[in-house]
Amino acid sequence: MSEKLVTQKEDFNQWYQDVVVRTGLADYAPVKGCMVIKPYGYAIWERIQEVLGGKIKETGHQNMYFPMLIPESFLQKETEHVEGFSPELAVVTHAGGKKLEENLVVRPTSETIIYSMFAKWIHSYRDLPLLINQWANVIRWELRTRLFLRTTEFLWQEGHTAHATHEESLEEVLKMLEVYRQFAREYLAVPVVSGLKSDAEKFAGALSTYAIEALMRDKKSLQMGTSHDLGQNFAKVFKVKFLDQGGTEQLVWQTSWGVSTRLLGAVVMTHGDDKGLILPPRVAPLPLVVVPIWKTDQEKALVLETARKLTAGLKGLNFKIDDRDTVTPGFKFNEWEQKGVPLRLELGPRDVEKESAVLVRRDTGEKQPVAWAELEKAIPEKLEAIQQGLLERAEKFQQEHTFNVDTWAEFNRTLAEPGGFLNAHWCGGRECEAHIKETTKATVRVMPFEKEPEIGKCVLCGKDSPRRVLFAKAY
Amino acid sequence: MSEKLVTQKEDFNQWYQDVVVRTGLADYAPVKGCMVIKPYGYAIWERIQEVLGGKIKETGHQNMYFPMLIPESFLQKETEHVEGFSPELAVVTHAGGKKLEENLVVRPTSETIIYSMFAKWIHSYRDLPLLINQWANVIRWELRTRLFLRTTEFLWQEGHTAHATHEESLEEVLKMLEVYRQFAREYLAVPVVSGLKSDAEKFAGALSTYAIEALMRDKKSLQMGTSHDLGQNFAKVFKVKFLDQGGTEQLVWQTSWGVSTRLLGAVVMTHGDDKGLILPPRVAPLPLVVVPIWKTDQEKALVLETARKLTAGLKGLNFKIDDRDTVTPGFKFNEWEQKGVPLRLELGPRDVEKESAVLVRRDTGEKQPVAWAELEKAIPEKLEAIQQGLLERAEKFQQEHTFNVDTWAEFNRTLAEPGGFLNAHWCGGRECEAHIKETTKATVRVMPFEKEPEIGKCVLCGKDSPRRVLFAKAY
Repeated sequence: MSEKLVTQKEDFNQWYQDVVVRTGLADYAPVKGCMVIKPYGYAIWERIQEVLGGKIKETGHQNMYFPMLIPESFLQKETEHVEGFSPELAVVTHAGGKKLEENLVVRPTSETIIYSMFAKWIHSYRDLPLLINQWANVIRWELRTRLFLRTTEFLWQEGHTAHATHEESLEEVLKMLEVYRQFAREYLAVPVVSGLKSDAEKFAGALSTYAIEALMRDKKSLQMGTSHDLGQNFAKVFKVKFLDQGGTEQLVWQTSWGVSTRLLGAVVMTHGDDKGLILPPRVAPLPLVVVPIWKTDQEKALVLETARKLTAGLKGLNFKIDDRDTVTPGFKFNEWEQKGVPLRLELGPRDVEKESAVLVRRDTGEKQPVAWAELEKAIPEKLEAIQQGLLERAEKFQQEHTFNVDTWAEFNRTLAEPGGFLNAHWCGGRECEAHIKETTKATVRVMPFEKEPEIGKCVLCGKDSPRRVLFAKAY
Repeated sequence: MSEKLVTQKEDFNQWYQDVVVRTGLADYAPVKGCMVIKPYGYAIWERIQEVLGGKIKETGHQNMYFPMLIPESFLQKETEHVEGFSPELAVVTHAGGKKLEENLVVRPTSETIIYSMFAKWIHSYRDLPLLINQWANVIRWELRTRLFLRTTEFLWQEGHTAHATHEESLEEVLKMLEVYRQFAREYLAVPVVSGLKSDAEKFAGALSTYAIEALMRDKKSLQMGTSHDLGQNFAKVFKVKFLDQGGTEQLVWQTSWGVSTRLLGAVVMTHGDDKGLILPPRVAPLPLVVVPIWKTDQEKALVLETARKLTAGLKGLNFKIDDRDTVTPGFKFNEWEQKGVPLRLELGPRDVEKESAVLVRRDTGEKQPVAWAELEKAIPEKLEAIQQGLLERAEKFQQEHTFNVDTWAEFNRTLAEPGGFLNAHWCGGRECEAHIKETTKATVRVMPFEKEPEIGKCVLCGKDSPRRVLFAKAY
């Protein structure tokens, strides 16, 4: 635990893997590309489920659970969908000791199985909108995996809705993207750019895909959540129809949207530093740790008793008094810093004399003596300041690494150094997009909502472009 | 929804299936033996997760998440385990477009994958006890399935622990069984019998299995939860070892325990009646429904406004004012009764005149006018009375259908009519147990803790028996 980490600058990937494993967020599983989510990581996921799950319910969605095994023929109904997912499927061919008549795939996503049920449940306009959500595990057979960011199995939520009109379903698509944006910002302290994906990057089977993208500290972009306008593509093949108010049979308009355990990777890579994790207080499993300092047994009794008294009034806040006597206070400081605990309270015999304690911020390292009488007020205030401070630091980093580039040379130079988000004109052509990806590894992350239309010339081919789009290297 | 149900007496199985589907607890999925858990059912499962999950954490266990796909070779390490589960496995043979080098099975339970990680994490006595829990989906390929009671895929929690001594692990096994017993009793209002399973009925790979069993209204027993003393069986094959305080290498002692979505079936079959579900208030998604009664638009405005005022002060209680004007109050009464909503508040123009409302209990049908000023007190009191009333009714039913039988003729006669739990002497022999099962379909459910040792003669073979055991037909 106390072993020093490689710095982010030396080797960001190694830093990331070491932080994730050493702080007990996750571990490698003995199954290709799979991970074990350990208690410290799972507690963050539970917090995400609690808060985001609450927002999903508040916006009118109900939780359900659908089977994990999907008949292969279901996947094959929607042409683009099966093409997109076929290379990643895990297939059950035998069960109960026999070869199956029809293979079953482990869900890579649940549009097909869910919409086969929607077809059964939806009859009339009165059954619409149908707004559901599922928390589940999915499998996508990935060649190159990385803890939380891309694993063969991952946990996620997938929302699925059906509406009477395209206007209404599109409103839903954008509403849920905005729920994700706000959640990332307000709880994970991760500022994101929202926008539309290019056709090459959209979900297999969607009319269009919207996403939120965030800039990690290695200046690569991470797609943190997606929301899909499915149009009537799945409704057609699964025959999800309703009688409208005039008695005419119509196809429904559908959406799906999801975020996954990848969000934990975003937290690690947005806030972490060379000492380890820094967790935003609103999602940290342990926002506060108390490290008592003593030399003699008498001092130990005094500081521990005082620590218990001082923390007795902290309501609704998870904290821990680290009373281990097998390691030094310095060891404890390092350990809790590596684990990213936002706030530390130090209490030694001298502090007790002065009726004071020292609060230490994980993000800035700032130490502040606080009188006992002020502690119950100071602790939540500090935590809130850390939450805001992390967001501001991440916003500043994003701003400092977002560039308007206008020539192909500038594009390449800026991407190499300092790197980050590049706003560049793009003609919209698949060929230019593919060529840029091939030569620079940068892709169109989104066509940002916030960007005003601006006439320009494609950074690669020089053809007319109606707007700048966001390019970056990405996970 | 308003279609009349078959009575329990006419056809209990049909009644069960119709209640589950019509009240929106679950639906049949287009995959063999699988179900879709619908919002009304899933909300009960979420409540179970919240309450039982809290108790699992309070007893020191931490949540984690392990991979769903397990290498086939892992299952094969423990001989009894693989023999027990082989017939039920779903096997992934292909993934990512290729045949796999080693088949992966979809977890039927996670002992093997979890203990392969325990072997990596546990080194010294300081790492013990290791107490973890997982909420997950599992697959067991069943030939005959029934919604919630036996489905190919189901949701559950599985606890897994490792200890330094057998004494300590056995204590854990019994502690968690007791957590289950109390939860079933206090929240689901289901009284259970706790005890030890016979060798024939124990978990594949365990030294011994303990269970809680409940009597359903068709006089069949339902196993509601199990807790396994795994001894060192898995520790041996997965090499889960630790250095004890003396520096000697030892194998750990392990336990596992679980409850599943089957609990929802228990609630349906313990409390339901010919009108439909009756849900215990502490786990009901909707404990209270308000049905306003009106004839004219003026009356409608009056009663709806009053209903909103009267319910404004109900804190921490989920309720719904059913203001639909497309159906009659009578239709609403039937619908909410079928859905098992514990308490109904009726409010018509006459009640408004009298500044009163009528509370109707779903369990007893009792109607009571309550003055407005008393409502905020009366509603939680009634709900508590219903919770207790359901438990008492279920206890009475269990008591009235529990019999001491001493001869083979009596055994057969009582099992046929009235049926229920039979406490009978059994020699402990596998042959007698098998013969009884074959000829009567009754099995040893548990050797109850509460039964005092009592010398007797085996109800079948007449050999000596040290105690009565609990026989019943079972799901």
